[in-house]
Amino acid sequence: MKMQKKPLILVTNDDGINAPGIRALIGVMNQIGDVVVVAPDSPQSGMGHAITINSTLYCSEIKNLNRPHKEYQCSGTPADCVKLAINELLNRKPDLCVSGINHGSNSSINVIYSGTMSAAIEAGIEGVPAIGFSLLDFKWNANFESLKTFVKSITLSALKNKIPSNVVLNVNFPKLKKEEINGIKICRQANASWVEKFDKRKSPLGRDYYWLTGEFINNDKGLDTDEWALANGYISIVPTQFDFTAHNSIKEINTWEFD
Amino acid sequence: MKMQKKPLILVTNDDGINAPGIRALIGVMNQIGDVVVVAPDSPQSGMGHAITINSTLYCSEIKNLNRPHKEYQCSGTPADCVKLAINELLNRKPDLCVSGINHGSNSSINVIYSGTMSAAIEAGIEGVPAIGFSLLDFKWNANFESLKTFVKSITLSALKNKIPSNVVLNVNFPKLKKEEINGIKICRQANASWVEKFDKRKSPLGRDYYWLTGEFINNDKGLDTDEWALANGYISIVPTQFDFTAHNSIKEINTWEFD
Repeated sequence: MKMQKKPLILVTNDDGINAPGIRALIGVMNQIGDVVVVAPDSPQSGMGHAITINSTLYCSEIKNLNRPHKEYQCSGTPADCVKLAINELLNRKPDLCVSGINHGSNSSINVIYSGTMSAAIEAGIEGVPAIGFSLLDFKWNANFESLKTFVKSITLSALKNKIPSNVVLNVNFPKLKKEEINGIKICRQANASWVEKFDKRKSPLGRDYYWLTGEFINNDKGLDTDEWALANGYISIVPTQFDFTAHNSIKEINTWEFD
Repeated sequence: MKMQKKPLILVTNDDGINAPGIRALIGVMNQIGDVVVVAPDSPQSGMGHAITINSTLYCSEIKNLNRPHKEYQCSGTPADCVKLAINELLNRKPDLCVSGINHGSNSSINVIYSGTMSAAIEAGIEGVPAIGFSLLDFKWNANFESLKTFVKSITLSALKNKIPSNVVLNVNFPKLKKEEINGIKICRQANASWVEKFDKRKSPLGRDYYWLTGEFINNDKGLDTDEWALANGYISIVPTQFDFTAHNSIKEINTWEFD
C-alpha cells in the first residue's frame, strides 16, 4: 500500500492561542495531519479582516516538548497570523487552514465582523483550502468536546472532496448535545443584521463614552439559510467567497447616466 | 415648483477626520445635501470590517461655526463610526453614506482590507445607500481637487437611479489629470491578491519583529475588471455585496458525504 503523505494543517483563531476552542481544534487536527499553530496572543473578536500595516508585529514560538506540533503566538490580527504563517513561518504552503473553534456564532452577517472567518478567508485568498468553525456559545467553558467528531468528519470530507477554488467553508454548530444534532446542511448566508443600541456612560473624569451592544434581527424566512439550519438542530456550512462583486447589478448600473 | 427636500448625507472615511481626502468629499457633499461627518479621530487604514466590542468608544462633536455642517470624531473604526452615526447621533436615517476619499486604492481584493469600504458596507447592511471613493494615490497631498466633478456626478446619479438594495458602490479613481480620464466603467472585482514579504528586524531590546509589506499580483486578464479599467484611464465602479455565499458551490458541496 502506498504511504499517503500527511497533510500540513495551519490552525488559527480569533479568541487567542489559549482559548479552549482552539485547543479542541488542535486536538482534532493532530489526528489528521501535521499541525502548526499560529494564533493571536490575545483575543481579537470583531476584528473583521483587519491587518496590521501601521505598526509592527511580534511573533514568537511557544516551546513545549510535550506536544507533537509547533505553536507560534503573534501580536497581530487573525489575518496577520495567516499571512505570517504562509509567507514567513512555514516551509511550504499548508494543505489546509482551519480557524476556530470560535466561542460564538459566525453565521449570517456575523461573517463580516468575524476574525475567525477573516483568517479562513485570508488563507483562501492565498490559495490555501480553509474552514472556519464556530459554536453558538460564547462562554469560555463551552462544550467543544462533543463537536470533535463533527469537526473531524467535515475536515476529512473537505480534504477528500476538495473545497472549490476561491471558496472557504463557514461552519457553525448549534449549542446542542451531540445526540440532539440532526445533521449537516449546506446553506446560504441568511440576510440578517444587527440593530445597535449604544450604552452611553460617563467616565470618572466626566467624559461621555459608549459600549456597542445590539440585537440580532433575522427577517430572512428562507429554509435554505444558515439561521434556519441552526435553529432546527443542524450544523450549517456556508460556502463563502471573496469576490464581493454583485454581478447581477452590473447590467442595471450600466444604464445609469453620469452628467 | 415643488421644493425637494435635501438629502441627509453621512460622510466618513478611514484615514481620519483631518485627512485631505475627506475634506474634499465634504466639500462636494455640501453642494448636494445636508452633511453630517462622523469619522475616526486617527488613521484606521487596513482595519477591514473591525468593530469595537471589547473596549469603549469615545465620540465628540468638533464645534466650528464657520461650516454649514456638524462634525464628530470617534475613537473607533470606520464601521463603528457608521453604527454610532446611524443608531445614536443622527435624528433620522441618512439618505446616503459616502466614505473616503481614500488615500490609496481599494480596487480588487483590497476591498476586503479596506476601512473605507467597510464603512460603506456597514451603511449598506443597515439599509442606507452607500458609496466608497478611493484614489490610487496614497500620498497625503494627493490631488483630490480634480476628482470633485466626478464625485459629484456619480453621487447625483446614484441618488437619482437608486443603488440596488444590498449593494454598495466601490468607486476607484486612477491617478490621472482630469482631462486624461477616459470615463467611467461598471466593473467586476479583479481576482488578484497580495504576495506578502515580511521585513524582519530586531528591536533595541533584541526581540524579533516584522513589518508587513507585499506586492500586488493581478493574474486576472479580464477586460471587465476594475484593474483593467483603472490601468486604462477609467474610473471603476464595482457594485459590491455583503452576501458572501458562493451560491454556485452549494450544489457541488451537497454531494459530499460526511462519515
